Amino acid sequence: MKVIKGGITAPLGFLANGVYCGIKPRGKNARDVALIYSTNTCVASAVFTSNKVQAAPIKISKAHIKNGKAQAIIANSGCANCCTGKSGLAHAEETAELTARALMLSEYDVLVASTGKIGRALNIKAIKKGIPLLVKGLSKNGSSRAARAIMTTDTRPKQSSISLTIGNKKVSIGAIAKGSGMIFPDMATMFCFIATDAVVSIAALDAALKTAIDNSFNKITVDGDRSTNDCVFILANGLAGNRRILPGRKDFAKFTQALQFITERLAKEIVLDGEGATKFIQVEVYGAKTLSEAKKAAQAVANSALVKTAISGSMPNWGRIAAAVGSSGVHLNHDKLDIYLENIRVMKNGSARLHSKSLLQILFKKKDINIKINLNAGRHNFKIWTSDLSEDYVRINKGL
Amino acid sequence: MKVIKGGITAPLGFLANGVYCGIKPRGKNARDVALIYSTNTCVASAVFTSNKVQAAPIKISKAHIKNGKAQAIIANSGCANCCTGKSGLAHAEETAELTARALMLSEYDVLVASTGKIGRALNIKAIKKGIPLLVKGLSKNGSSRAARAIMTTDTRPKQSSISLTIGNKKVSIGAIAKGSGMIFPDMATMFCFIATDAVVSIAALDAALKTAIDNSFNKITVDGDRSTNDCVFILANGLAGNRRILPGRKDFAKFTQALQFITERLAKEIVLDGEGATKFIQVEVYGAKTLSEAKKAAQAVANSALVKTAISGSMPNWGRIAAAVGSSGVHLNHDKLDIYLENIRVMKNGSARLHSKSLLQILFKKKDINIKINLNAGRHNFKIWTSDLSEDYVRINKGL
Repeated sequence: MKVIKGGITAPLGFLANGVYCGIKPRGKNARDVALIYSTNTCVASAVFTSNKVQAAPIKISKAHIKNGKAQAIIANSGCANCCTGKSGLAHAEETAELTARALMLSEYDVLVASTGKIGRALNIKAIKKGIPLLVKGLSKNGSSRAARAIMTTDTRPKQSSISLTIGNKKVSIGAIAKGSGMIFPDMATMFCFIATDAVVSIAALDAALKTAIDNSFNKITVDGDRSTNDCVFILANGLAGNRRILPGRKDFAKFTQALQFITERLAKEIVLDGEGATKFIQVEVYGAKTLSEAKKAAQAVANSALVKTAISGSMPNWGRIAAAVGSSGVHLNHDKLDIYLENIRVMKNGSARLHSKSLLQILFKKKDINIKINLNAGRHNFKIWTSDLSEDYVRINKGL
Repeated sequence: MKVIKGGITAPLGFLANGVYCGIKPRGKNARDVALIYSTNTCVASAVFTSNKVQAAPIKISKAHIKNGKAQAIIANSGCANCCTGKSGLAHAEETAELTARALMLSEYDVLVASTGKIGRALNIKAIKKGIPLLVKGLSKNGSSRAARAIMTTDTRPKQSSISLTIGNKKVSIGAIAKGSGMIFPDMATMFCFIATDAVVSIAALDAALKTAIDNSFNKITVDGDRSTNDCVFILANGLAGNRRILPGRKDFAKFTQALQFITERLAKEIVLDGEGATKFIQVEVYGAKTLSEAKKAAQAVANSALVKTAISGSMPNWGRIAAAVGSSGVHLNHDKLDIYLENIRVMKNGSARLHSKSLLQILFKKKDINIKINLNAGRHNFKIWTSDLSEDYVRINKGL
């Protein structure tokens, strides 16, 4: 497995572009619509938001991917096209149709995605104007432009690509992503579009994507708490010519691992680029009675505004971690609770252990905060990533 | 029912005081320990935090109230005496013993409470020094001093008192309270100490307190998400000489209503004095499939950092309300979801309704925000109160 350049256009046969069409207010370097295109039909898989309020493009893409195939993705920022009723659905469908026509594809081979404000009509005229520009500029160097065009409050584009060997063939995987908002609140829209030239069965692709997401994006969002527009798409065009990757085989494990490497990296980048984020926080819960309780306890800590503000201010107030765990509703015996910062045990059997204030301050001043909690109540563990809560988070979200 | 002056010392036979003893850093008007005392033994009831990490004073007070009696409450701010192991328990017990000795009571008739930082030892020497001062200054005018002595990040003392007639007797109820932090995070310690001169059976007192709390403090805290130190105590000394209040009777309903009036008023004051709070937000959910789903949906909205920052910034971004409800995990059909601000329907059947931006801005600029959500999925309703999320909230909690 080797990190390579190129982002989503690193795999053979993929082109991308990102342009300004007029959905966002015109600004310096503003881009608001992206296109990803494969020169041949792909096996495709997707994971969609579990939010019950779903944006129009989510509904359209769900319908289009039912056949397990796709060849292009068009995605805009600046408008979520959500809670927009029948006209919103018509706009999402028209976006797919116009893209399909321009690329000479079936509209069922085009996936659509939108991110931005909820409740506003999509500027379909702008999309209409943008599509020819997008198609004209499709290029092997277009990954950064596409990554920029899907940004909302992201401060930097996010892309990643790697190669691996399956049999004696080089296979590449590339992706772009966006994440807005800190990850703890419920509604940070997250996109990840992945391209690969691997030859892979649809079953293997589905399974690999599920595993990769469970170990990356699902660790940074609170379960069931997804945006109305979240989606991950993967397109595999088979141009690498490797022996077909099938579920459960050795090649499958290798491919899944590579895919997870990409999604984990992008998930971490999303956390680090969270609105107002100044620190990366990992919360690990051990010894829970069930996996779901391990998750619940980790989420309670990662979602606690008091824990996140303490970390933002580098205040060694680990008591807030104990309080968050205690109120999470999971099985625990206060007298058995252990809490570690890095590998320093600050709480043992439910009681504070004395450490010099300066040692604790050094730990809390780090940019990378590692919290370990042992409930000592069972054998299940869960890990979650989040960022701190700063004044900038509030400032950014007051103004959106 | 009539609002009267006097706070917790309004009922006959109750005295109070609050002094500085040295737990907090010395500051202008700093007080850090409060005493409430009845001249005779009271029937007593309490509700304690459901957090599984419980502070030492909670454990001691639970033991002391088992007999349904109490005569004094001693409460300190500046230190939670939580996660402090055996020595913490010994300190809480010693606090009760010293208070009992000074007042010539049994230690089992003294309830203790602490609020402040977790994981630090209680300064028992300071408490020892404070008790004689507290006892010496016990007075019918001591309610404000007591209310001040339990404040942490509260900006103002909170007290309330009313009188009602039971039979032909005047009965009074008075209370002091403190609430720190915005109410949405999991761990804002909340105290409410209530005194009444009513003659009331222990069963009636327990039931009335439970109802009053369910309709006040339990509407401002996320269920199961309580601080390690939260507690509500009520002491009834019977000096009003009214006919005994028994469960289920007409007098009981009257007494419960009066008690609820007090707790609701203090709960609202706590929200309004939330850290950095600039607005009072009421979230009402209608038409849920079950009561627990109505609660869950209301809490999801009230706890959403994105909703709370939008309101803080007076940005009419009601789409965030829809997204929070959608991701709450409750039964809902997007196409049936209605959202109102005041009585203006901004979303009907899942789609945005067009309103002038200026109208929406006027609604969001109000200090009192009223959000109504109709899931149209059943017959259950729930109401919750919260405050907005401002930069000041972060600033306060970074520095604590």
